[in-house]
Amino acid sequence: MNALVCDVGGTNTRLGLVEKGVLTSGSLASFRNAEFADFNSLLSAYLWQIGRGRVDAASIALAAPVGPEGATLTNHDWTISRAGVGSVTGARAIHFLNDFEALGFALLDVGLLETVVLRDGPEAGNKQARRLVLGAGTGFNAAALIIDPVTGHPVVAAAECGHTTLPVQGEEEHDIQRFLSKGRGRASNERALSGRGLSELYAWCCEKAGTDPVLQGSAEIARRALDGSDGLAREAALLFARFLGRVAGDLALAFLPLGGIYLTGGVSRALLPLLKDDPAFMAAFHAKGRMSGFMEQFPIAMLTDDRVALAGCAAFLAAQPGSQKS
Amino acid sequence: MNALVCDVGGTNTRLGLVEKGVLTSGSLASFRNAEFADFNSLLSAYLWQIGRGRVDAASIALAAPVGPEGATLTNHDWTISRAGVGSVTGARAIHFLNDFEALGFALLDVGLLETVVLRDGPEAGNKQARRLVLGAGTGFNAAALIIDPVTGHPVVAAAECGHTTLPVQGEEEHDIQRFLSKGRGRASNERALSGRGLSELYAWCCEKAGTDPVLQGSAEIARRALDGSDGLAREAALLFARFLGRVAGDLALAFLPLGGIYLTGGVSRALLPLLKDDPAFMAAFHAKGRMSGFMEQFPIAMLTDDRVALAGCAAFLAAQPGSQKS
Repeated sequence: MNALVCDVGGTNTRLGLVEKGVLTSGSLASFRNAEFADFNSLLSAYLWQIGRGRVDAASIALAAPVGPEGATLTNHDWTISRAGVGSVTGARAIHFLNDFEALGFALLDVGLLETVVLRDGPEAGNKQARRLVLGAGTGFNAAALIIDPVTGHPVVAAAECGHTTLPVQGEEEHDIQRFLSKGRGRASNERALSGRGLSELYAWCCEKAGTDPVLQGSAEIARRALDGSDGLAREAALLFARFLGRVAGDLALAFLPLGGIYLTGGVSRALLPLLKDDPAFMAAFHAKGRMSGFMEQFPIAMLTDDRVALAGCAAFLAAQPGSQKS
Repeated sequence: MNALVCDVGGTNTRLGLVEKGVLTSGSLASFRNAEFADFNSLLSAYLWQIGRGRVDAASIALAAPVGPEGATLTNHDWTISRAGVGSVTGARAIHFLNDFEALGFALLDVGLLETVVLRDGPEAGNKQARRLVLGAGTGFNAAALIIDPVTGHPVVAAAECGHTTLPVQGEEEHDIQRFLSKGRGRASNERALSGRGLSELYAWCCEKAGTDPVLQGSAEIARRALDGSDGLAREAALLFARFLGRVAGDLALAFLPLGGIYLTGGVSRALLPLLKDDPAFMAAFHAKGRMSGFMEQFPIAMLTDDRVALAGCAAFLAAQPGSQKS
């Protein structure tokens, strides 16, 4: 059996071919969405490039709400449908996954992926232990990988963690919450923990300092925070790290991922040196009162591998009934 | 096969006998812990009462941290051990569960238990849909029941949700957070959502009103809040309902329990009429910005059945390998 795996992002689509349960490295490709009129054209181009007329199955991860028949990408007005994918690829089995669902399945074989370890723990690498992936990029979300202790079969619990209440404490953060809540009455995790969130935190730092924001966009704020050339950018990045640490700690208590917490997402990755070397992230992660000692058990790493969603699509297929790898 | 099921609380221990997968109603009993020198004496008394010398298996739920060999109940200095239970009951298979883990398994057959529906939803009763139990009593916690879509086998994800950050927003709640955080630097869910939490919320209402607290304990505060005879007790109960609604909403977004959210715990149950009839709880549950419409899908009910933990122990046994019911 072979299968197409596909990770449809807002800007690029990554693709690969799984043969006998393994993602073949020679098959990996990335296409710019803007160069194609629709998703089916992109799929056709890929199959032509790798010299395949058809595949047996397809597993497609999307950063969009996914229904059984597919999804619509709002930023390109693309419809990705079961019927369309079937007609282009010939696949009989077609699976649509939420992007974080795919990342959750990728944690099954996380040893095969590039990661940066922030902190080890006693159950790191235990194949039976729960794991959690969480990330801040365009938005914020998380997914838990849970191994059924009876069947040994993996289950991924998808979530909508970008919309839960941003946890704040103390005077300064109360003022940040007020700033982020303007016109909304509330601030969700995503209001701080996303690219736009980092920009908002920077805007708050500027307002507090009585200056106008000069940096444009989260990538520039992250870069200037890391190279030390902008004090307000660094302050914003440290606030981001603190909120990320607190939310990661709260999610650790909710899902108990003793097998490991994996950070992902463009903004988290851009700030990796700061998350790793500055105490802001870890201090907020551990600050759980009498549970602080308990928090030290959770291994924490950053996923730095661009293939992670494709690996997750492959792992998802292997976990389906009748798969030779399941 | 028969099995002893047992729910060890801080004050009482409930027991029952499962025969051929069914909790036999004639076997149910409840004993006061204080009347026994140790847990083994209590077990012996129960087995004598039902006229059984021994059982094949035992499944024991405890409101305490549970290890593979048992647990220690701090308030009675009781040690509940695998070896002790084995020698008294003759059981070869002995399982220890966290109390919320048992409640999670009880949701498998929740139709057999007494509940009060607060709000219905499209996936209520769907045996494949995720469910969540959450409750405020001595402490606060939650557990998710997840059905593996591939194997159909249930998995319960235990948690430590009492220790996550209490979600606050707005000036009044910021002041409450400051009050609850005194001497700690933070306020967890449990600081508001527990018996002691209700008392603290009442103390905050009294402080704000410039009067001394006169009501003693959460039971009296709940009673006076419901009968309308004390305005400050009612104010405290409405704050409790608001925090419970917000936390339940956040947990709904984290676990996506479209099959239903089940409230439990002594304080939640004591306040049922207020949670059901006053808009405070539901309004806070739905207040998730652009996700407010999404929140309407979650069915919500209160577990009002005292057998729920025993039913969970029985459901846990049925889900083990080799069970005739699994």
